[in-house]
Amino acid sequence: MNIADLSMSRRIRRTPFTENVEQCGVSGFTVVNHMLMPKAFNLSVEDDYWHLSKHVQIWDVSCQRQVQITGVDAEKLIQFMTPRFLKNMQVGKCFYIPLIDENAGMINDPILLKLDNYKYWLSVADSDVILWAKGLASGLNLNVEIDEPSIYPLAIQGPKAEELMVKIFGDKIRSIKFFHFDNFKFDGKNLVISRSGYSKQGGFEIYFSGFEKGKKLWNIIWEEGKIFNISPGCPNLIDRIEAGFLSYGNEFNIENNPYECNFGKYCSEDSNHDFVGKKALKKIKKEGINKKIMGVIFDGNSCPPCSIPFPVYSNDNKKIGQITSAIYSPKLKKNIGLSMILRNYWNIKEPILIETPDHLTRKGYTTSLPFV
Amino acid sequence: MNIADLSMSRRIRRTPFTENVEQCGVSGFTVVNHMLMPKAFNLSVEDDYWHLSKHVQIWDVSCQRQVQITGVDAEKLIQFMTPRFLKNMQVGKCFYIPLIDENAGMINDPILLKLDNYKYWLSVADSDVILWAKGLASGLNLNVEIDEPSIYPLAIQGPKAEELMVKIFGDKIRSIKFFHFDNFKFDGKNLVISRSGYSKQGGFEIYFSGFEKGKKLWNIIWEEGKIFNISPGCPNLIDRIEAGFLSYGNEFNIENNPYECNFGKYCSEDSNHDFVGKKALKKIKKEGINKKIMGVIFDGNSCPPCSIPFPVYSNDNKKIGQITSAIYSPKLKKNIGLSMILRNYWNIKEPILIETPDHLTRKGYTTSLPFV
Repeated sequence: MNIADLSMSRRIRRTPFTENVEQCGVSGFTVVNHMLMPKAFNLSVEDDYWHLSKHVQIWDVSCQRQVQITGVDAEKLIQFMTPRFLKNMQVGKCFYIPLIDENAGMINDPILLKLDNYKYWLSVADSDVILWAKGLASGLNLNVEIDEPSIYPLAIQGPKAEELMVKIFGDKIRSIKFFHFDNFKFDGKNLVISRSGYSKQGGFEIYFSGFEKGKKLWNIIWEEGKIFNISPGCPNLIDRIEAGFLSYGNEFNIENNPYECNFGKYCSEDSNHDFVGKKALKKIKKEGINKKIMGVIFDGNSCPPCSIPFPVYSNDNKKIGQITSAIYSPKLKKNIGLSMILRNYWNIKEPILIETPDHLTRKGYTTSLPFV
Repeated sequence: MNIADLSMSRRIRRTPFTENVEQCGVSGFTVVNHMLMPKAFNLSVEDDYWHLSKHVQIWDVSCQRQVQITGVDAEKLIQFMTPRFLKNMQVGKCFYIPLIDENAGMINDPILLKLDNYKYWLSVADSDVILWAKGLASGLNLNVEIDEPSIYPLAIQGPKAEELMVKIFGDKIRSIKFFHFDNFKFDGKNLVISRSGYSKQGGFEIYFSGFEKGKKLWNIIWEEGKIFNISPGCPNLIDRIEAGFLSYGNEFNIENNPYECNFGKYCSEDSNHDFVGKKALKKIKKEGINKKIMGVIFDGNSCPPCSIPFPVYSNDNKKIGQITSAIYSPKLKKNIGLSMILRNYWNIKEPILIETPDHLTRKGYTTSLPFV
């Protein structure tokens, strides 16, 4: 079984855009950060993939909650939360940062936005980073305020995203560089817009503030987007896997360290800044890791949905990993997946076998990321 | 829309019993603590309610994750996390404890199990308490280990639960008092069993340890349960609301303090133990609260599912609350619901008006909890 009804309640929070996505015929949701995230509309995943690669889409990614940290100790706290060195971070910049616990286990992989020297947002994946930040701040007795403001990101993704955004927010949109943000106005209120998003087609994320006016914002984008063939969407699984984007809880979790996730480039454990898990991370770096995430390409018809991981075996039948996300790539005309792979099998094009839930054993091989 | 498909992935974790509940015809799930929880089987909620009140049910409540805290500072950390005074807690006891943040906002309302003087479990509702505990421990530099062991609670609920449990685990089951636990063996491994559960019909929670043998445990209970008319189940909404049991994320969240949730009896802010939020909680107690959770009884046909809160108005049309969980009670032959109610309207039988999403305005009145 891959699909069942989702029971709704206040605990599974609606967003300012949930009514809009319902009107657009949303057919499936998932739950991220105790909030609804659309997972499917009328198009098949493949048709949606082609649409995203040619036009523009509007995604309700409100579940990317913002953990807001303000106060004189804000930088100190955030620097203590991540092995990435933040000293040179400028206001207006977005940083992808791993957060780790005392064992160097991954707690989350948010985007950090520096709003000013005393105000930051962590735009988080699926775990309660707010509790981690509050716990550290209470324990360290830091002078910060930590909360989850009424901010609901809306992603505008695809090659026509820039033209659409310019129509609504003006030419200033063009000057936003990748992984930077700027301030705009909507309906008299401030709005942060970044050039970012969970697709390789490019686009923007609007950090919409408030709740009531969400429908108005959606409707304006929708109307202006018609000439660009706008469609409702959500992170597309083909595009996401082809790009090698990882998903917290799927490809990795608190059992994994940043090196296993290929996040070594974000780890400055040799700098003199202190952070939680520094000792554990240094030890891991010294001793080396035994597994890491790789791409996997495999044969046969379109594989079933990967709701339960697919075991991966070496050619001599040793279990060497499990595919945690997989789908058929119409561009590569092969199935593609993401898997932690044991150390002895890190050669590119290492031949492997994959068991899929349709009781097939499929031939495949390892590869580097991204796929395309 | 109240129901939509739930998209499955590794991030929404399966349990040792998910295959069993699928074989039993589960028709809906919710997501709690990043894990599947069954929400419906073949019976209607009302038929399920009557079954639960007469027979015995088996519930996959694996989503009640255990945050395990061990080490010489374990008690110190847990005492710092809750306003409830724990000094006299005995090994073998379960305590319901509010966890609050620095503003006295509710973080969770777990059951605490004291396994020995240096080992505790927090059996948590829907928030990542593990991150809160780890953050505090890191910040305070405490000598503890905090993790989420492979423990998956299975609830056996209903008036025939004791007879069924005795058949499987022996007469020692009878000696477990309410909100106590004891140690048992299953398949050569230790197992904790408590007399507790999220229903007013009584029963037990089996803290099953491991994963692979879960199916075996379920099947044994199922076979032995047949003569007791066993049925698969899950927390029943009628039973839950009638009992006045609150649900974190539904009736209350981090915006609410324990007094608003009627948890004053668990708050010892005048004792000399220190805990996060003590100053804020003392201030709240001194100044008094402006709203608190009450029961609401209201007229008309069976109300629609409460997937979006129902606004509550006074007789002079002032908004005084919102119902966050509601259902028709076949015992009271009225609709019942739970709502925070503003201070000036705390009289029992205060007349109120409720707007339901079927565009009806229904007459009702406030009441104390539990309903029956």
